[in-house]
Amino acid sequence: MTTVQRQRRSTSYDEPMNKRRIAVAPTSRPAMFDAMMQAVIDAGGEPAPVAEASALMWADPAAAADFPGAVANAPDLEWIQLPYAGIENFADQLDPSKIWTCGKGVYADPVAEHIITLTLAGFRHLHTSIPATSWPAQEGRNLLGANVTVIGAGGITESLIRLLEPWNTTITVVRRSETPLEGADRTVPIDDVYSAIADADVVVLAAALTDETRGMVDAEFLRQMNDDAWLVNVARGGLVVTDDLLDALSEGLIAGAALDVTDPEPLPDGHALWHLPNCIITPHVGNTPEMGLPLIADRVRQNVARWIADEELIGLVDVEAGY
Amino acid sequence: MTTVQRQRRSTSYDEPMNKRRIAVAPTSRPAMFDAMMQAVIDAGGEPAPVAEASALMWADPAAAADFPGAVANAPDLEWIQLPYAGIENFADQLDPSKIWTCGKGVYADPVAEHIITLTLAGFRHLHTSIPATSWPAQEGRNLLGANVTVIGAGGITESLIRLLEPWNTTITVVRRSETPLEGADRTVPIDDVYSAIADADVVVLAAALTDETRGMVDAEFLRQMNDDAWLVNVARGGLVVTDDLLDALSEGLIAGAALDVTDPEPLPDGHALWHLPNCIITPHVGNTPEMGLPLIADRVRQNVARWIADEELIGLVDVEAGY
Repeated sequence: MTTVQRQRRSTSYDEPMNKRRIAVAPTSRPAMFDAMMQAVIDAGGEPAPVAEASALMWADPAAAADFPGAVANAPDLEWIQLPYAGIENFADQLDPSKIWTCGKGVYADPVAEHIITLTLAGFRHLHTSIPATSWPAQEGRNLLGANVTVIGAGGITESLIRLLEPWNTTITVVRRSETPLEGADRTVPIDDVYSAIADADVVVLAAALTDETRGMVDAEFLRQMNDDAWLVNVARGGLVVTDDLLDALSEGLIAGAALDVTDPEPLPDGHALWHLPNCIITPHVGNTPEMGLPLIADRVRQNVARWIADEELIGLVDVEAGY
Repeated sequence: MTTVQRQRRSTSYDEPMNKRRIAVAPTSRPAMFDAMMQAVIDAGGEPAPVAEASALMWADPAAAADFPGAVANAPDLEWIQLPYAGIENFADQLDPSKIWTCGKGVYADPVAEHIITLTLAGFRHLHTSIPATSWPAQEGRNLLGANVTVIGAGGITESLIRLLEPWNTTITVVRRSETPLEGADRTVPIDDVYSAIADADVVVLAAALTDETRGMVDAEFLRQMNDDAWLVNVARGGLVVTDDLLDALSEGLIAGAALDVTDPEPLPDGHALWHLPNCIITPHVGNTPEMGLPLIADRVRQNVARWIADEELIGLVDVEAGY
């Protein structure tokens, strides 16, 4: 390709065709590569090598080290779509002269779905029914109309609020600031967390693990919860002091715990949590790779269509802030 | 009371007073009796013995055998409210000269919630995770975006459609007629049921048990389902040919079954269904007495108020059809 040709593609006359040329790389995760490539084609894009593309769909979240080489000779490259919501691996690559998007919000829905799965499992006594080999007692309570308290106000919480919209729940969100989260019935700052959990039927942990949140669910936190409430953790195991939770579950301080994440994780064989009847454990499957692939492919499809149509992209990265 | 008095109450002049006289019987389930009695009073009704009542709120779903005796001497009785949605126990009592209502739609929300509980339990592999004592394989799929086929177009299906509204599911409803159900993406007549289950990720049974529906889920039905689909039954055990389901689950014809109702019910100790790893059984708790009592009391309150005001009752039974 000559310089003249390249310059011509940059004129406004040719720009629509130019923007259609989309690269997908690398090929190290074939399933993600294939799904993204199909999404590009479905959206009206034309697959192109990086050197001739206006945009690059990066198809391997683990291959950040290969990124600089891949974009070294890409004069027309204006937009990069990263595959995951967390982009800490790419923090050093964020060239502010380009447009960056990531998987922000893409994976929140499956995790919110899993919050509902775990809450219903506890409320509907599946921890009793599933192991039973004899007709169990007829017990259970409803998530419909329940008081739900969520620690954390990110994409997962936003998804949960959206999914529960017709369920007539009362949702309290605990976050660092006092800024009300849209859709929440009540927003409580973290300093006042005990007031937010006192009347909760379920307390959901959906916060990032930071120095501030590590071990926040300790003996005192668990004592502040209702004795018929469930604790659901889909965030990080380190938010909970495991030994304190073990004591609370054994003593009946709370009704039960449903954990998609544990500390330590994976939970080792023989750990006491495996044997508590009121503890449900799932193996960090809020969002599995199989669930995520069609979701990121759908995001690629939407964004490529928007790119071609000169519309705003979804999941824009704030290059200054790094997320 | 003299015959003259009784005749006078039937004249149009006295009818409003007459209609206020409401009986609640039997007393064999005190909690239901008390809740219904309070609801009658709250709605402006006047508690009366059956012999002097214009309407009877039947307060024990199990006591169908006592029904003929209770209404044997009830010359003014025009309307009977039955407590449950399923009325097969009363099929022989349905005197077409009277108005019959049942709990249709009353229990719909909790049962629809339980459909979602059971579907998520299967999709999210809780049948594997809950009994595990070692970190399980990371498996699962989403209800979000799934193809949901529901057999039956009653109140439970309407509730399910409402609760799943933000979940981006594609809902196919199978019913006797071709009349589209509001909110369903597709409505298919029962004669064409196989076309409705072929691409379903979950097939939900929410239909009344009638001569037409008894045993509809047989070997051929199960063969027509996807081999990765779940069957969820919250209606009546008799809709399913249990032996055919056992074979299908053992052979992997479908991914699994989650049953809130069984045939026989309660499922006896030692029954083979207890021991299939891909079968989840809950003990008919779609709606428990604790969940249902305030709901049926609310229906009685609404219907008695409508009865007194000469408005149409909710949950009318089609005596010909038997539901």
